[in-house]
Amino acid sequence: MNGMLTDEKYARAALTYLAEPADRWLSQLLREHGAAGALDAIKNYAAASGPGPRSGKARAMQAAMERWRVRLPELPRPDQVLAFREAGIRLIAPGDPEWPGQLADLGDDQPYALWLRGHADLRFSCLRSVAIVGSRAATAYGSYVAAEFAGSVAARGWAVVSGGAFGVDAAAHRAALGADGVTVAVLACGVDVPYPSAHAELFDAVAAQGVLVSEWPPGRHVTRLRFLVRNRVIAALATGTLVVEAGQRSGALNTARHARDLRRRLMAVPGPVTSDLSAGCHHILREWQGVLVTSAAEVTEHLSPIEATASAPPAGASLAAGRQAVPPVIPRDLLDLESATVLDAMPRRGGLATLRVAQRAGLAPAATATCLGRLATAGFVERCDDGWRLRRT
Amino acid sequence: MNGMLTDEKYARAALTYLAEPADRWLSQLLREHGAAGALDAIKNYAAASGPGPRSGKARAMQAAMERWRVRLPELPRPDQVLAFREAGIRLIAPGDPEWPGQLADLGDDQPYALWLRGHADLRFSCLRSVAIVGSRAATAYGSYVAAEFAGSVAARGWAVVSGGAFGVDAAAHRAALGADGVTVAVLACGVDVPYPSAHAELFDAVAAQGVLVSEWPPGRHVTRLRFLVRNRVIAALATGTLVVEAGQRSGALNTARHARDLRRRLMAVPGPVTSDLSAGCHHILREWQGVLVTSAAEVTEHLSPIEATASAPPAGASLAAGRQAVPPVIPRDLLDLESATVLDAMPRRGGLATLRVAQRAGLAPAATATCLGRLATAGFVERCDDGWRLRRT
Repeated sequence: MNGMLTDEKYARAALTYLAEPADRWLSQLLREHGAAGALDAIKNYAAASGPGPRSGKARAMQAAMERWRVRLPELPRPDQVLAFREAGIRLIAPGDPEWPGQLADLGDDQPYALWLRGHADLRFSCLRSVAIVGSRAATAYGSYVAAEFAGSVAARGWAVVSGGAFGVDAAAHRAALGADGVTVAVLACGVDVPYPSAHAELFDAVAAQGVLVSEWPPGRHVTRLRFLVRNRVIAALATGTLVVEAGQRSGALNTARHARDLRRRLMAVPGPVTSDLSAGCHHILREWQGVLVTSAAEVTEHLSPIEATASAPPAGASLAAGRQAVPPVIPRDLLDLESATVLDAMPRRGGLATLRVAQRAGLAPAATATCLGRLATAGFVERCDDGWRLRRT
Repeated sequence: MNGMLTDEKYARAALTYLAEPADRWLSQLLREHGAAGALDAIKNYAAASGPGPRSGKARAMQAAMERWRVRLPELPRPDQVLAFREAGIRLIAPGDPEWPGQLADLGDDQPYALWLRGHADLRFSCLRSVAIVGSRAATAYGSYVAAEFAGSVAARGWAVVSGGAFGVDAAAHRAALGADGVTVAVLACGVDVPYPSAHAELFDAVAAQGVLVSEWPPGRHVTRLRFLVRNRVIAALATGTLVVEAGQRSGALNTARHARDLRRRLMAVPGPVTSDLSAGCHHILREWQGVLVTSAAEVTEHLSPIEATASAPPAGASLAAGRQAVPPVIPRDLLDLESATVLDAMPRRGGLATLRVAQRAGLAPAATATCLGRLATAGFVERCDDGWRLRRT
C-alpha cells in the first residue's frame, strides 16, 4: 500500500471482509489460486443448479463460497481501501517488508492480511517481544505483576504484545507505554473500533507509541469466537508468551496453548494456590512445561540467553530490582537489506541528519527515514539533537 | 531397650552425649571399632605426652578425642539410660526393628542413635510420609496452605514429618493431629525439652498420637547449628519433602537441599512472586527441579503414582476438594518378618482379640501387640469392638 494497491494486495484486503480468519476452505483456495484468483472465484461463483457436487469436500467448498458471497456487498472498492491511510490505517500482507515472517508458523491458519494502526513497525517490534496475557478480571496481584513485568521488559527494549482487554492486558499495555516502550495490541475487532470502549484512549496511546493489529477490517466488531481466533496471532507474533493470571478455562490459557503448539517459549507467573486465577498459571507450569518466572529479568533471560549472560542480574534479584535497560540484540541478519544498509551507514560516534544518512547509505531520503524508524523501534538507533545516532551498547 | 541394654546399645546412647551428630571423626571410629569399641577408645584415651602425632588426620582425631572427653562427666550410667523409659523416652539404634532403614542414605552422617518420645512407631510412620516444612514467620497464606496440605495427606494415611517450629511446622503438625493422623516432630533438642516453650502442649499431643525424634539426648537444648544438622534427618526420614513457604536463605531451603541431595521427592507450593517467603519455593521450582504442587492430591500422586492411579482425583480438583481417605499401599515386603506374620494371621473378615491373633501367628502376645500397633500406624489394621481387624481397602 505504498501509494499503489496491487490486485493481489487488494484481494487480500477484500478477503478479510469476506471470510473469517483461519477458514480452511479459503486457505485451500489461496494455495491453489492466490488471493486475486480466490477473490475472482468467489465473485464469479454461481450456485450450481441441479444436483449439488457429490464429494464432501466439494460440498463444503460450495457452502463456503455461498457463505463468503453473502458479504460481497460489504466489499470496499480499491480507492476506499487506500483511503483508510488517511485514518492512519494500513494493510500488510505476506511478503510485505512489515509482515512478521514468524506468522508463517501458523501454516494454513496464517492471517490473510493484517490491518494496522500505529507508528511502530510490526515486524521490527515483534522481533524482540513478549506476549503478556491474562485474566480480564485480574486481581490486584495480577494487575501489579503484569505492570511490573511489562514495564521492566519494555524498559529493556522488548515490545509487549497483548490483547487490549481489561485486567492483565490493559496493565501490560499501559506499563509498556509508561516505560517509553513499544506495545502491540492485537484486537478481535477493527483497529478503529474501541472495544472495550473504555479503552479508546489507551488504544490511541498504543497507536501513538506502538501499533494496533487486527485480522478484521475497519469497522468490524468483536464476537466471542473472534477472541479465540485472535489468540493464535498473539502467540505467533511474540517471541514468547507469559501468562500472569488465568483461570482454568480462559482465553489466556487458550493463547498459552497456541504458544506451546507453535513451540514458542511459554512462561507463567505463579501465585497463591488458593487463587482460582492462578490455577491456569499452575496448570501451564505443571502440565505444559511452562517456565516459572518471578521477575522480568527471568523473562528476558529465558527468551534470549545470550543477553542474559551479558547482563545477568544478581542471583535472587527481586522483582523490583529487575528493571534496568539493556541493549537490544536482534541479530543483524534479521534486518531487511535497506535497513541493514542504513544501519551500516550510521557513524560510530555522534548524530547525523536523515539526509546525511541517506547520502552515506545511497538511499532515497524517504526510504531512509522509514528504515531509521524501524531501526529505532528495534532499538538500534535513537533520536538526538543532530538527528539520529546509534544507541550505546 | 526391651528391658535389657546391650553394651553396644548403651554405647550408642553414650555417644549421643559425647559427640555432636554427623561428626566425621566419630563416624570413622564407629566404622573401625563399633559403638562399644569407640566408647572404650574415648574413655581410655590419654593425651599423648611429648610431641603430638605428625599426620593431619591423626591430629584431628586427637582433637576430637579431647573434645568428646570433655563431656565424659555428663555420661549417664546404663541404669539411668534405662530409667528414661519411665518418662516415655526410648532409644533406637541402627538395626533395631523401629530404626528407619532409609537413614542409611545419609552414609557417614547417619545418626548414631535416635531418642524417641511418643506412641507411633517411627519406622512404620515414615514408610509413607511427607516432610512439610517452611518459614517460622509464615504468612497467613503459608499457615493456611500448610494446614490444608498436612490435614489432607494425614487423612489419606500419610505421616507428616516436620521440625516442631513456629509457623509452617506447627500448622502442619496441628493439622495432621486434627485429621487423626500421625505426625513426626524431629527436634534439635532433647525430646523432653519443649522448644519453643509455647509448643509444650503441642509436643505432648504429638507424643500421644505420633512421635518426637531427636539425635540429642534428653535435656539437651537447641543451638543454631543443631537446627541445620537436624534438617538432614527430616529430609532422610520422609518419602518426600514439601516446602510451603521459605525465604531465600532459610532452614526450610536447607532441608530441601538435603532432600534433593538424598534424591528424595522434592516439592514446593508456589505463592505470590511479590512475597519474599515464596522466593525460596520458587527457587526450588526453578533451580532444583522441584515439583510444583497445588493440592494434597498432587503431593500423594507425586509420592506414590500407583495410589494416584487407583484413586485419582478429578482433573483440576481444587485444594479444598482434595481431602479424602485412601487406603495405604506400603509394599508388604517393607514389613519386618514378625509384623508380616501378624498381618498374614489376620482374618479376612471381622475382628480378633490380640491373644487370638497371637495364637494364629504363633507369636508371643506382647510381640503381637507391638506388631499390631505398627500395622495400625502403617494403616493395615485398625481397632474394632472385637479387638483388631484389617482396614478395608
